[in-house]
Amino acid sequence: MDDDLKERIARELIGLVREKSWDKVTVRELTTRCGISRGGFYYHFQDVMDALEWTVSREISRLLVRGAQSQDAGASLALMIRAMRGYYAELKSLFSATKMRPQAVAVVIRAIQDNLRPLLSRCATSGALPREQRELLVGLLSYGIAGMILEEPDGSDFSPEFVAREVRLLIEARLNLPVR
Amino acid sequence: MDDDLKERIARELIGLVREKSWDKVTVRELTTRCGISRGGFYYHFQDVMDALEWTVSREISRLLVRGAQSQDAGASLALMIRAMRGYYAELKSLFSATKMRPQAVAVVIRAIQDNLRPLLSRCATSGALPREQRELLVGLLSYGIAGMILEEPDGSDFSPEFVAREVRLLIEARLNLPVR
Repeated sequence: MDDDLKERIARELIGLVREKSWDKVTVRELTTRCGISRGGFYYHFQDVMDALEWTVSREISRLLVRGAQSQDAGASLALMIRAMRGYYAELKSLFSATKMRPQAVAVVIRAIQDNLRPLLSRCATSGALPREQRELLVGLLSYGIAGMILEEPDGSDFSPEFVAREVRLLIEARLNLPVR
Repeated sequence: MDDDLKERIARELIGLVREKSWDKVTVRELTTRCGISRGGFYYHFQDVMDALEWTVSREISRLLVRGAQSQDAGASLALMIRAMRGYYAELKSLFSATKMRPQAVAVVIRAIQDNLRPLLSRCATSGALPREQRELLVGLLSYGIAGMILEEPDGSDFSPEFVAREVRLLIEARLNLPVR
């Protein structure tokens, strides 16, 4: 029941953020839409930002679950990129809010990294990369993918499958490079 | 003489931005520091943001000139990453200002791309990558490098030479992958 209410708030919040910038959304508006009391809202969340953070994490967990059901790590990465691009406007709005930015960056980067790591394990045919280099590779590629998702203009000629395929080729090439 | 004045404004602006957030800097403060009239400032710039944009571009051009003097494209990339990390606080301040963000991102990404392209030409030993894939590689790597520079916490264990070397290895590996 409680979880139902959180879900309902999250759904209405996504709707509102599609209409206007998230920092213009008020608790009053949100509770009116959900048909709940302010107390009901504050039982679950501290403020709009707190609700938004929960909503973003929940959406991304869903993507990860869907991704994990896919047998192909490359297909799962493409799925995640496509889904994140689907939230382009909402993510842009989150990222343009200074206060929310660090959390939003952390959530997006973590989600991408969770998708990259299995790809790295599957691609390594000739021994593993030392930990430090593997972490740098994961960092570079996740910031790279986040940049393609968030900074490339909406409507630009951008295929998630093409990006995922290139990322996979890069990982394969790097992991199978002779050690020096 | 005019260029001297612009340089002087730029220098004082960097000093001020080191002391406080750029959006707290006023034209009055800047002209007082430079010992010039407000008219002198407005002859060259429209506002503080305009002056800041010019200053950032000028700093980055200087880095590029220094980088170009280096024979080694990898060393030049490391130099640029190190210099950008040196401006960590200023870049963070620029990037956290919503209005300035798109220009700041564009300037930083362009600077990184200008450093990556020569590296790509020098690394291709077995034929060129198709244009679309080369552009995606440049995009991914430049957003990746920008993320390492801007999002990794200040004081984190981050070596520009290590990042530049890994980027070079990645490019080499990808470019010399058999075409499929």
